[in-house]
Amino acid sequence: MTDFHVYDTTLRDGAQQEGLNLSVPDKLAIAGYLDQLGFGFVEGGWPGANPKDTEFFRRAATELRLQHAVLAAFGSTRRAGTEAAQDPQVLALVESGAPVVTLVAKSSPRHVVEALHTTLEENLAMVRDTVSFLVAQGRRVFVDAEHFFDSYVQDPAYPVQVVQEAFAAGAEVVALCDTNGGMLPPQVFRAVTELRAVTDGILGAHCHNDTGCAVANTLAAVDAGATHVQGTVNGYGERTGNADLVTVVANLQLKQGREVVDPAALAQALHLSHAVSEVTNIPPVGRQPYVGASAFAHKAGLHASALKVHPDLYQHTDPALVGNSMRTLVSDMAGRASIELKATELGYDLTHDRELAARTVKRVKDLEQDGWTFDAADASFELLLREEVTGEPLQYFATESWRIITDSGDGREALSEATVKLRAAGRRVVATGEGNGPVNALDHALREALADAYPELAGFELTDFRVRILDASHGTDATTRVLIETSDESSSWQTVGVAPNIVHASWTALVDSFSYGLLKRGVQPRP
Amino acid sequence: MTDFHVYDTTLRDGAQQEGLNLSVPDKLAIAGYLDQLGFGFVEGGWPGANPKDTEFFRRAATELRLQHAVLAAFGSTRRAGTEAAQDPQVLALVESGAPVVTLVAKSSPRHVVEALHTTLEENLAMVRDTVSFLVAQGRRVFVDAEHFFDSYVQDPAYPVQVVQEAFAAGAEVVALCDTNGGMLPPQVFRAVTELRAVTDGILGAHCHNDTGCAVANTLAAVDAGATHVQGTVNGYGERTGNADLVTVVANLQLKQGREVVDPAALAQALHLSHAVSEVTNIPPVGRQPYVGASAFAHKAGLHASALKVHPDLYQHTDPALVGNSMRTLVSDMAGRASIELKATELGYDLTHDRELAARTVKRVKDLEQDGWTFDAADASFELLLREEVTGEPLQYFATESWRIITDSGDGREALSEATVKLRAAGRRVVATGEGNGPVNALDHALREALADAYPELAGFELTDFRVRILDASHGTDATTRVLIETSDESSSWQTVGVAPNIVHASWTALVDSFSYGLLKRGVQPRP
Repeated sequence: MTDFHVYDTTLRDGAQQEGLNLSVPDKLAIAGYLDQLGFGFVEGGWPGANPKDTEFFRRAATELRLQHAVLAAFGSTRRAGTEAAQDPQVLALVESGAPVVTLVAKSSPRHVVEALHTTLEENLAMVRDTVSFLVAQGRRVFVDAEHFFDSYVQDPAYPVQVVQEAFAAGAEVVALCDTNGGMLPPQVFRAVTELRAVTDGILGAHCHNDTGCAVANTLAAVDAGATHVQGTVNGYGERTGNADLVTVVANLQLKQGREVVDPAALAQALHLSHAVSEVTNIPPVGRQPYVGASAFAHKAGLHASALKVHPDLYQHTDPALVGNSMRTLVSDMAGRASIELKATELGYDLTHDRELAARTVKRVKDLEQDGWTFDAADASFELLLREEVTGEPLQYFATESWRIITDSGDGREALSEATVKLRAAGRRVVATGEGNGPVNALDHALREALADAYPELAGFELTDFRVRILDASHGTDATTRVLIETSDESSSWQTVGVAPNIVHASWTALVDSFSYGLLKRGVQPRP
Repeated sequence: MTDFHVYDTTLRDGAQQEGLNLSVPDKLAIAGYLDQLGFGFVEGGWPGANPKDTEFFRRAATELRLQHAVLAAFGSTRRAGTEAAQDPQVLALVESGAPVVTLVAKSSPRHVVEALHTTLEENLAMVRDTVSFLVAQGRRVFVDAEHFFDSYVQDPAYPVQVVQEAFAAGAEVVALCDTNGGMLPPQVFRAVTELRAVTDGILGAHCHNDTGCAVANTLAAVDAGATHVQGTVNGYGERTGNADLVTVVANLQLKQGREVVDPAALAQALHLSHAVSEVTNIPPVGRQPYVGASAFAHKAGLHASALKVHPDLYQHTDPALVGNSMRTLVSDMAGRASIELKATELGYDLTHDRELAARTVKRVKDLEQDGWTFDAADASFELLLREEVTGEPLQYFATESWRIITDSGDGREALSEATVKLRAAGRRVVATGEGNGPVNALDHALREALADAYPELAGFELTDFRVRILDASHGTDATTRVLIETSDESSSWQTVGVAPNIVHASWTALVDSFSYGLLKRGVQPRP
């Protein structure tokens, strides 16, 4: 690539996010994904400060096979009144074996005095000594100038002095940090522009999202001459998070024409950012720029008609460049065009049978009038479409009846018990299941009843369940919509059910989810 | 305030978000919250294009009592080759009765020709005719210049002509739209600066977040002279969403010192944005700027003591200004200020009894840990508060047990039957109720059982019922949170219940709603 630095701190600053806790194997797995994303530097943690990170660097040396990325160890300048060569925390950075060491250095007078309780002169000496010691140890040294921007807008003198001290001592990069995340792009642009004029070293940006501007602030720094950007995958980080590095890279590469990573790596962005969220166990955000599931999803019928003809009219970039793809959503704002487009996506061509298309559109509109929604239930929509095309419903079993009893007494937690009676594979079955809720019990009873006829069901798991009460003005008399997500080892699908009774709506969505899963596996109905 | 326009489109563009589907009562409730946020304009929908929106405007006229906000109806310029006065879609805008009409007008030659299939001249005439017709009908007319920026970067001539045509015809505002969301701040700044130089009209910005820069792009337009900003609460919207209007307003007001909304309204931002997400049933994002649960949460590495001595060292702004509070993830003192504030609102003074305050805060924190939320359940919070203050729970009756049977057979609609056994007014009562759902049946059975002891219950009606599944990763095994709204002739109140079993959670919220209603009427418990 270029000599532009893409520096990832998901494993260190990203791990500061509330509710995010990474084991050493988690960190090793994520480091591999970051490397596949084509990032130049992976900050692995703070060896010495935290035993888990010390172990990460120990195991990384033998277990990690990085293609592009260089490993960086994060740490701090030496303690006040000590020698760098004697400071255990500094020595741990050397022992980590990481070729790059990134040192956090205070660049705000208030923080030096009120938080670090030392003098401005001693802080400068701490930067000078620690950088030169590590350089003498053969390390590439990067410096994170903490609270740089907060300090700069008050008075540029001291933070600029810290930056110059770092470069003078041999630092290769100084990353300017908006540690509290309160900056807006014009402030960042001005500060970096002025600093760029007085130093030749490589300047970087480390931004947080507290004003919702982390990405824009990072780009503003680059516009002003920074050639090193720091961030995290999926924007993980303390408080509102760090700059989303995938979004930053995609903007630099696709909007500004700077090739900062291998285009083939960028084309894996969706897959890899979702793989990272599998490890962190934090669900991906559908609205995430470029890689979100909704990032190229279109709902408005107005758009859909034109989309059919010219996708680029309503897309800011080609989704394939980040491994994403365009989707149309079926909704009451959608007309025939978006339904035809959706059908085509699912492999059904309605465009040549106007009568079939019209019938399908009418059925969707009527159902939506009753509270159904298909924009979050592709599987139910495909079953509906299939029924219209083939002229008959897909029926894996014939329901005779079901019943659920939920009770509680003497203050004990309620328990639900469901009984299902149906015919499958030529036999009448009666099965009972218990659960901590009516739907949970129904799910267990239905699986029990179908276990012999369709053993494939064992591979399905209900992974999400959402309830929406429609026309709230009637309170508990209202219509209920239930959305269910079901997963197997390779995929997941959404189904919907609508009925006045929440349990009935759940039953409908549950039956659809089983039918769709069996259909996808090519299982023939044995009613 | 100033004559700066804060224009919300949550109910129109926000509703384009995947999985977001609002009923008319939902829209009316959200409009009320937007008004409390101090926003100047609330875009309610597209009457005529969508029967639901037509009904919204009809009901808004009699049911909405807006303090600050002016209602806007969204629509399109007349169809090509017709007269504005004859276009049913244009007439529906007049019939909506909204004082402001916002017209979407194409400002990109490619879209005029390839999507609208008409000529550039006819498109200008469509803008001119529709604006002047609506102005003649006594409406304030705003114009959304669709695809303005995409078009401007190609060739400014035509989009500028569209803007000037709109103003010449009497438009009060022209909002420049980054419809595809692909812009970066410097492009927006340049375009608005150049346009500002050739027109005197009020310019606005409507930005989407496809590059992660919706907020920064909106601010760039304001820096260049725009005085009208459009966005949505929680950044809802198609694809990656619209500019998060709360973040935009907080940045303008707290970072740039422009008072664009009442500071007292901004101080309700967290409460109101969470209340909106209870209506949309889309879980709030912890990392959301300003109002996210994590936005001012500090994890390990910082010394809580230093944080307490100098909070401004680690915060970009005072969280209280947006109704949020600082949390150090080790301290359960967190949130005390907001809880004391809420208590004072409800007429309980905790500020002089620190031990009581600390006990209440701890109990709330523990409950929130288990999934309870009091943002949208003031009545349950007041009952909790009252219990802490008086030292005993408010008990109108003693529950022995309850049971619900829900069944369906031969394809008939499911029916629920509930039996409740309890003691009230010194008597043991066994009562049964039927309903079209478990909670409906439970409601009927409980009313039946308490009818003699508390005839006042006849005046209560369940007017809303919401379910949220927490920790969805467990599917139907997850914890369930139920929010209930109850009304009588003069007021309405919200209660909450949390339990693994949805019916149990509903029972808890139901009992709270009856207790609170009786308490408000001064009814003494007769257990």
